[in-house]
Amino acid sequence: MAAFILHPQLEKDSIFVRDLSLSQLRLNNQKTLPWLVLVPRRADIRDLHQLDAEDRAQLMEEIAQASKALEELYAPDKINVGALGNIVAQLHLHVIARFKNDPAWPAPVWGRLTPETYAPEAIEVIKNKLGNEKFWT
Amino acid sequence: MAAFILHPQLEKDSIFVRDLSLSQLRLNNQKTLPWLVLVPRRADIRDLHQLDAEDRAQLMEEIAQASKALEELYAPDKINVGALGNIVAQLHLHVIARFKNDPAWPAPVWGRLTPETYAPEAIEVIKNKLGNEKFWT
Repeated sequence: MAAFILHPQLEKDSIFVRDLSLSQLRLNNQKTLPWLVLVPRRADIRDLHQLDAEDRAQLMEEIAQASKALEELYAPDKINVGALGNIVAQLHLHVIARFKNDPAWPAPVWGRLTPETYAPEAIEVIKNKLGNEKFWT
Repeated sequence: MAAFILHPQLEKDSIFVRDLSLSQLRLNNQKTLPWLVLVPRRADIRDLHQLDAEDRAQLMEEIAQASKALEELYAPDKINVGALGNIVAQLHLHVIARFKNDPAWPAPVWGRLTPETYAPEAIEVIKNKLGNEKFWT
């Protein structure tokens, strides 16, 4: 069985927060919006249906946990969830807090935000908030 | 418990194909790309994490079934899955066959395609193909 290796583009664009049971939880380094990325630690998977049924069920639970964490921490107007991967094919799930006054609303955010990375101190604050065990058990 | 009523915008933009165990399977009436929409028949649900755990697991299976059906019928380069709902908040999942030569590639398709509806005969052909029991059991 091939080993999971995080795609270098995902590694560059996002910050490791913690490992969940199946996925790496990462923070997209785009400070405009609270934007999480879940990367299932499975090799050679491009699309959801290529995961086995157990992994699919677990991934859905991790999506729900990530959604609830964003809701509790940021009180967004809507959660957007997406598995696109047209540029980076390695399966990764976006879970994004959207607000009626965000710069892309109501359009999808992909490709519509000016790149703006977090300050290092801000990353630590968010990682501490997101790392709270209560969101992931 | 409130009854499920399909949002009129979803009814207008897409065509009923069949009921799955949880969701209505619908075909987006946009002929540029094979584009399915799953609408869980649950009232007052906006985001995935508001479904109970059993429904979430079932929805993931229906996403996988829809993905496999698109893969078998159209051999796409990538499947895109998304739950956005910034315009129509009722929970609905997009499962879309993407091609490297499609007019929006590699960007997401939402808001990037010229509206083009199917001819009635084409709809019947697709509904027959998609309705094949093997994809949904």
